[in-house]
Amino acid sequence: MTEVKSDIEIARAARKKPIQEIGGKLGIPAEHLLPYGHDKAKISAEFIAETRSRPDGKLILVTAINPTPAGEGKTTTTVGLGDGLNRIGKKAVICIREASLGPCFGVKGGAAGGGYAQVVPMEDINLHFTGDFHAITAAHNLLSALIDNHIYWGNELEIDTRRIVWRRVMDMNDRALREIVCSLGGPANGFPREAGFDITVASEVMAILCLSKDLKDLENRLGDIVVAYRRDKSPVFARDLKADGAMAVLLKDAMQPNLVQTLENNPALVHGGPFANIAHGCNSVVATTTALKLADYVVTEAGFGADLGAEKFFDIKCRKAGLKPAAAVIVATVRAMKMNGGVKKEDLGTEDIDAVRRGCANLGRHIENVKQFGVPAVVAINHFHSDTPAEIEAMKAFVATLGEEAIVCRHWAEGSSGIEELARKVAALAESGMSQFAPIYPDAMPLFDKVDTVVKRIYRGTEAIADKAIRDQLHAWEQAGYGHLPVCIAKTQYSFSTDPTLRGAPTGHVVPIREVRLSAGAGFVVAICGEIMTMPGLPRSPSSERIFLNERGYIEGLF
Amino acid sequence: MTEVKSDIEIARAARKKPIQEIGGKLGIPAEHLLPYGHDKAKISAEFIAETRSRPDGKLILVTAINPTPAGEGKTTTTVGLGDGLNRIGKKAVICIREASLGPCFGVKGGAAGGGYAQVVPMEDINLHFTGDFHAITAAHNLLSALIDNHIYWGNELEIDTRRIVWRRVMDMNDRALREIVCSLGGPANGFPREAGFDITVASEVMAILCLSKDLKDLENRLGDIVVAYRRDKSPVFARDLKADGAMAVLLKDAMQPNLVQTLENNPALVHGGPFANIAHGCNSVVATTTALKLADYVVTEAGFGADLGAEKFFDIKCRKAGLKPAAAVIVATVRAMKMNGGVKKEDLGTEDIDAVRRGCANLGRHIENVKQFGVPAVVAINHFHSDTPAEIEAMKAFVATLGEEAIVCRHWAEGSSGIEELARKVAALAESGMSQFAPIYPDAMPLFDKVDTVVKRIYRGTEAIADKAIRDQLHAWEQAGYGHLPVCIAKTQYSFSTDPTLRGAPTGHVVPIREVRLSAGAGFVVAICGEIMTMPGLPRSPSSERIFLNERGYIEGLF
Repeated sequence: MTEVKSDIEIARAARKKPIQEIGGKLGIPAEHLLPYGHDKAKISAEFIAETRSRPDGKLILVTAINPTPAGEGKTTTTVGLGDGLNRIGKKAVICIREASLGPCFGVKGGAAGGGYAQVVPMEDINLHFTGDFHAITAAHNLLSALIDNHIYWGNELEIDTRRIVWRRVMDMNDRALREIVCSLGGPANGFPREAGFDITVASEVMAILCLSKDLKDLENRLGDIVVAYRRDKSPVFARDLKADGAMAVLLKDAMQPNLVQTLENNPALVHGGPFANIAHGCNSVVATTTALKLADYVVTEAGFGADLGAEKFFDIKCRKAGLKPAAAVIVATVRAMKMNGGVKKEDLGTEDIDAVRRGCANLGRHIENVKQFGVPAVVAINHFHSDTPAEIEAMKAFVATLGEEAIVCRHWAEGSSGIEELARKVAALAESGMSQFAPIYPDAMPLFDKVDTVVKRIYRGTEAIADKAIRDQLHAWEQAGYGHLPVCIAKTQYSFSTDPTLRGAPTGHVVPIREVRLSAGAGFVVAICGEIMTMPGLPRSPSSERIFLNERGYIEGLF
Repeated sequence: MTEVKSDIEIARAARKKPIQEIGGKLGIPAEHLLPYGHDKAKISAEFIAETRSRPDGKLILVTAINPTPAGEGKTTTTVGLGDGLNRIGKKAVICIREASLGPCFGVKGGAAGGGYAQVVPMEDINLHFTGDFHAITAAHNLLSALIDNHIYWGNELEIDTRRIVWRRVMDMNDRALREIVCSLGGPANGFPREAGFDITVASEVMAILCLSKDLKDLENRLGDIVVAYRRDKSPVFARDLKADGAMAVLLKDAMQPNLVQTLENNPALVHGGPFANIAHGCNSVVATTTALKLADYVVTEAGFGADLGAEKFFDIKCRKAGLKPAAAVIVATVRAMKMNGGVKKEDLGTEDIDAVRRGCANLGRHIENVKQFGVPAVVAINHFHSDTPAEIEAMKAFVATLGEEAIVCRHWAEGSSGIEELARKVAALAESGMSQFAPIYPDAMPLFDKVDTVVKRIYRGTEAIADKAIRDQLHAWEQAGYGHLPVCIAKTQYSFSTDPTLRGAPTGHVVPIREVRLSAGAGFVVAICGEIMTMPGLPRSPSSERIFLNERGYIEGLF
């Protein structure tokens, strides 16, 4: 390759089709597409309701090895595979998450794929898009305001101001808001108390929106949110503050999935984007279930590596939404294998077949894990210019020892023509009827045992451990009727263990549960294992300093 | 009238036309309308640039007496007059402000007109609309985050953390956020300091967006924002934090005016909505100047009564944007005259001609004031069912003594057919060439004298007074090159004085300047006279408790 164009150059050169034409490919009439500009649209709730009785297409999950600084290209592969399936004559749509606004101004990097496998309009997708995240922020903060307002006017519900668990949110990286004292300044401003902000993607409202079947389900779940406890530790719900109705009104439009297109003019639903640590990290159930009614193949992705992302996709999203994934793709790169094999980032350009072989232990474990859920898997080697034939061969040989196949994909450089082989393999797997999907633990298992099961079977640790206070809290929630919920484990994405520097396939580690949280509206219990940041900060030189409108009015520096 | 429909019933029964058809009435090609659903669109910046060389239509200001709890119906009259002008064969467009989201959940009441004089879709306009306010919130808070981030990483600019004047904003009524301490929780979260939130409409970014000619002007003004001072009191600008480029990127779409329609399918631009106390309270300059290129008549409104709204419209918006208003309409009601004449709200149903006559003193002063700016005026009596013929006659007779005309308008109940007479009068005034518009003070006047001029000539007080510290601050800004700016006076909207209970036409009052603020980006100096709340609270029983989606998915309780 003599000339490499940047992502933004490629995206700008895209020949986008009117969004009505893209919707037409999925059989959506123009009156049921609510346009946002000429290249984005929401699919109307009415149309979605009409499709409910149709048969489902095949659901394909794209997941990955543990992320390394080398980058694995999961979204890029998701987009590429969608284009590849369309190229080989299949009716396919991709479902991915929306991007969070805040991080755009911190560290360079968009969330719309890359190279010749992107969704467009990428500037919009990375900025305000159709306003969904702003709606979530508003709904979340309305509830926050109603809590303090209730206390201000007499606190009839007897909320213990020391036990308010509902914080505020902002779609911004702002460490100064992590811990605050609010309601200062005298009686007119309320009762001073400790409070704080999370980033919007960490809001339980985001998780709720992404797990709700429809508006009615959404409103019920919003009402179920536990916002605080009384002195007797009984919960106070959003419903008690009569907040659920107004929150649902604020989220009415946001519940409708967003349609955009790939560079190759294939349809893509981009909807929802919960954190992948304290939440489940998948695009919305509404988008996925709608896509399954509109296409024969739906390609979706899950956050982080398969230990976190795929596990939550299977055990939370698929379990709760009744989804049956037909096949999984595990994305890996030669570079990431080398880093897992001990090579430093600056040495990645040098061929090192032994390091590749050592690093494959990480990949191998993810393959085994996905198969534990009964889902057939194939490995996608996302090709980089610097990969050598011998390195690729080493990866393929390793995967073959597990009885599986690894396929080199060049969608980044070549678009769909570079990913045809993977597309054919995925279609064959999906059509084979091999998938016998089941979650890895039953609903009826006690909450602690659910965490312990994931630790042992997925993370391959010795056991989960927790203080008595945490075990007591889990028991209390079981007594209160939350025992049937799945668990959502928040731990580092960089390792199977809780030590981010432990690459490869570590064993013998214990996983300590530091804290547990109840997301009663979303419908899961969060087990926090390690330091999890729910409000990021900005770096010393934030990328916002280099973002501007150029002379032609185009956005520079965003990607 | 035997049956009175509610605003929401009327709005829901509206037969909306596709927004492209509405745009077509103004000669906007479909490709230059960026749709948001089927009934809202932004007008592209490219198209706006193309219209720059066209001649301007006539600009009509709708203003009002001092507001009373009886309601005067300024927006309703603005919408009605636009429809009325179209009805009598004129090509007219209205320009009004966008609604703030936060207050919707506090006290019932939308901002899209009423009765048969409304803009639609009213639910959208009162909620997220096209996301402009969310974009302003994000741009504002990005700057806030960059300030604390700069301090966190070493504070190279030597910002005095006690002198940070840039707060954060949220589009929510949340008194708990008025005064906070942020950056608590240890070294990772920064340096603790006092901070706080205003509501988004009070953001200087809102005022800047509404006063900027184009994106370049916007970016320059964003850079000019003073965010803090050093220990030597020298200012630190947003430009010093390299925030202006990214903020402009966030506001790129929000700068494009929004097109919707009235119930009678006439075009309406709804764009921007700055506070009318600490800011100038008018819709955007871009919307108004664009409308003037597309129609023969542009009907717009200003916030609060004419003492605040019209004065700022003339002295800030028109002065800075080079606008020449051709005529003004002063909205008054029989009910409001009675309240100004001393009648209590519960007694408004009883005829009281003497009270009407007494209350007319308030109206008379506003008529005189508007004429001081050289703009011909007519009084619109916004008709209520309970008004008696004798009361209306008393109002008309009073206005006639000032050599002007008062015209009864029934647009609320009858739509455009009820406001034909006013439309004909306004058209005649505008075409008469009578307007000799000039601001009431020159740019070169010292800042304090500007306030004093408004106090004496508009508020009819004895004088403006201020402590030495405030006068020194004004001198310091004059020395720093800000002396040419207009002043933006924040005082109660209920009285010509600073005492909200002093209705009618008080005299002899002094106006104390309690505080001054520099809005260097927006381009005015704020003089705060009295208690001004920039972050409202919610009432004991907020209207959010009664807002929900009904069985048909329609929004209930919002209006």
